[in-house]
Amino acid sequence: MVRKTKSSKGLKSLPGERGDAAFRSKCSITRTLDIVGDKWTLLIVRDLLWHGKHTFAALQGSAENIPTNILADRLQRLAEWGLVRRELYQERPPRFAYHLTDTGKALEPALTSILYWGHNVLDGGMPERLRGKNSPG
Amino acid sequence: MVRKTKSSKGLKSLPGERGDAAFRSKCSITRTLDIVGDKWTLLIVRDLLWHGKHTFAALQGSAENIPTNILADRLQRLAEWGLVRRELYQERPPRFAYHLTDTGKALEPALTSILYWGHNVLDGGMPERLRGKNSPG
Repeated sequence: MVRKTKSSKGLKSLPGERGDAAFRSKCSITRTLDIVGDKWTLLIVRDLLWHGKHTFAALQGSAENIPTNILADRLQRLAEWGLVRRELYQERPPRFAYHLTDTGKALEPALTSILYWGHNVLDGGMPERLRGKNSPG
Repeated sequence: MVRKTKSSKGLKSLPGERGDAAFRSKCSITRTLDIVGDKWTLLIVRDLLWHGKHTFAALQGSAENIPTNILADRLQRLAEWGLVRRELYQERPPRFAYHLTDTGKALEPALTSILYWGHNVLDGGMPERLRGKNSPG
């Protein structure tokens, strides 16, 4: 799915074509964490995927109060890795909308598993649409 | 599962009983990332869960070359949050073995989903036991 031409439009290379030197090891978990392994990146993916937030201001408005410089850095990284595409929707002043590519959307099962753990173990919230479903774990 | 007496032995409180102030928001994903959201913690969980590494030296020997101070810090944090229990297996000099509690083991579905994404998108490795199974995504 992630190798569709559509999702790689405008990229110099697909993420998997960067070569081993881009990562700490061959391990698939390590490689994923090399891109999304921090306290903020998956919250941006969450907001793009589930919460309909597609502008810088909307993403910045989430409850976790992401610092401006971190949000800008993570959006840039997500775009460089082909998980997010940026679209100019207003020219003066320039305003961009951010959307997940298929590669970015493919993180949904990981996000869902993380969500269930945080709900079961840390008393975190559970979205209405997931209530009553069995935990994937 | 995570509320069994067994897995919380020795803990002052279960992770979910720490209260909202311990986390950036009520979101279950945010809370999980508040504990495991970095480049290293889930690699330690991986090694404890799948690779039979239960000593400091064994964990330090993985391909990613985790720095000593980070490994010590993360094991301490994982123990404080009730994901790992530490057992003295030699007294002089003191040597400890590390094992996941049920709470820690409950991260397996999240690890597996992360692994599939890294395999599909980033050309990361796939363990023999998972080959041929359908991706959870």
